[in-house]
Amino acid sequence: MPTAGFLVIGNEILSGKVVDTNSPFLAKELRKIGVDLERILTIPDEIDIIAEEVRKMSEDYDYVLTSGGIGPTHDDLTMDGVAKAFGLPMELDEDLCRRIEEATGDHFNESMRKMAILPKGAGVQESGELWFPLISVHNVFVLPGIPRLFEAKFSSVAEQMTGIPFQLKRVYVKSFESEIASHLHALLEEFEELMLGSYPRMGEEHYRVMLTLESRDIDYLERALSSLLDRLPDEIVHRIE
Amino acid sequence: MPTAGFLVIGNEILSGKVVDTNSPFLAKELRKIGVDLERILTIPDEIDIIAEEVRKMSEDYDYVLTSGGIGPTHDDLTMDGVAKAFGLPMELDEDLCRRIEEATGDHFNESMRKMAILPKGAGVQESGELWFPLISVHNVFVLPGIPRLFEAKFSSVAEQMTGIPFQLKRVYVKSFESEIASHLHALLEEFEELMLGSYPRMGEEHYRVMLTLESRDIDYLERALSSLLDRLPDEIVHRIE
Repeated sequence: MPTAGFLVIGNEILSGKVVDTNSPFLAKELRKIGVDLERILTIPDEIDIIAEEVRKMSEDYDYVLTSGGIGPTHDDLTMDGVAKAFGLPMELDEDLCRRIEEATGDHFNESMRKMAILPKGAGVQESGELWFPLISVHNVFVLPGIPRLFEAKFSSVAEQMTGIPFQLKRVYVKSFESEIASHLHALLEEFEELMLGSYPRMGEEHYRVMLTLESRDIDYLERALSSLLDRLPDEIVHRIE
Repeated sequence: MPTAGFLVIGNEILSGKVVDTNSPFLAKELRKIGVDLERILTIPDEIDIIAEEVRKMSEDYDYVLTSGGIGPTHDDLTMDGVAKAFGLPMELDEDLCRRIEEATGDHFNESMRKMAILPKGAGVQESGELWFPLISVHNVFVLPGIPRLFEAKFSSVAEQMTGIPFQLKRVYVKSFESEIASHLHALLEEFEELMLGSYPRMGEEHYRVMLTLESRDIDYLERALSSLLDRLPDEIVHRIE
C-alpha cells in the first residue's frame, strides 16, 4: 500500500501563533484516497533540520508532502532545505520567473525573484486555477502553508496518487471501554489484519465508546463486524454505522 | 533555554478520524511559560516506533510530553513503548492498582488492571483534581489523549517547568510581503538574535502581512521595533500591538 509522510515547516505553529489546519485536512484526504499517512512532523524553519527530515521521509515513504516556508521572505527556507536534502544546487527557473513577473506586475521585485529559485531539476507542474505551479523534487511535493492555497494545491497532488481506500464500520457501545476490552482482544486474535480503534467519548448521552473497524477488504470487514457483534451483549450496542 | 518535544501517539489522528487539538493547546501554553517547543511528531500506536521516538526526544530535549495510548485496550501501547525506550521492564504498581479499584468500583476488571502496569521506577505524582496520577519516566511525561484530561494533566506538568517567556510585538503592514522583504532582511542583519516572523494574511481588510518580533530581552525587542519602524514607510504601517 502506498504510504505518505507530512512535514510541517513553521516556527509559527511551534510557538502557538498559528493553528495547523493542514494536517487534519491532509489526514482526511489521504484516507479517502487510500494512502497511508504514517507520520506528521512539525519542525522549525531551519535549513539543516528541513534537509535531514526531508531526506529521511523521502526514503521511508512513497509520497512526502511539505507545508510552509516557500514565500519571498527571510524565514522561507523550505526550498533550500529540500535542495540540501538531495545535494542539489539552487537555480533560477527562467520560465517561472517570467510567470511571477506577469502575475505580480507592478509588485514584482527582487524578493519575488527568490520564489523562482528552485532545486535544480525540480518538477514544475500546472496546478489547477492557481497561477503558481506545483513544485516537486523526487517524491517530495512542496506545498504552501496558507490553508486555502495548500488545499487547492493538494488537489493537484491527489490526482497523481493511487491508493486503495479503507472500508469503515463504526459501532457505538454503551459500556465502559474497560468492560469490552477482553472482547476486542479476542476479536483481534481472530482477525489479525483488522484495524480496530476504540475511542472513549466523554459527554455523549447514548454511548461511552466508539469502535472503528477498518479493512481494505469489504468481505473481511463484514466478517469481523459479525464476529464482534456475536461477542458483545446485544443490550450494550447502541448503534452501528 | 529549556526545550520540549511533543509526541502524539494515535492512529486516529493519522487516519483523519480525530483532530489533534492537544498540539495547538500545548504550543500556546509552553510559549507562555517560556519553554521552546522544538518538535511535534505524530506516529502510529506501535511499540517500536514509540520506543525509538521517545528515546530520541528524551536525549534531544529537556522535557518530552506524550499524548494518547494509555487506556485499557489493545491499542494503548504508550507505556510499553516508553518502557522499551529506556530498557525498563513493565511492573504492576500495587498502590495505583488499589486506587484504580477504588475509583472504578463495580467497573473494575482485568483490563483496568493494565492501567496500573508501568515502566519500573516510573514517577507517580498527584495531579490536581484528577484521581489518576501523572506518570513520568526520566524527562518524559505521559499524558492522556482525551483533550479535557490532557489539559488538566498538563497543568501539573507546567508547575514543574521553568522558562523565560518571550516578549512579543506585532506590526500589521498594508503592503505585500515581497515589498518589505528587503527591509526585514536588513533588520535581521542588525538584530541577529531577533525572532522575526512574517505572515501574509488573505482576506483581511486593513493589512496584508502580520509581522511578529520576539525576544526574551524586552530592551532588545524595543530597539529592534524602533529600527523596523524607521525602515518601513509610515504609510504602510497599519497598526502596532
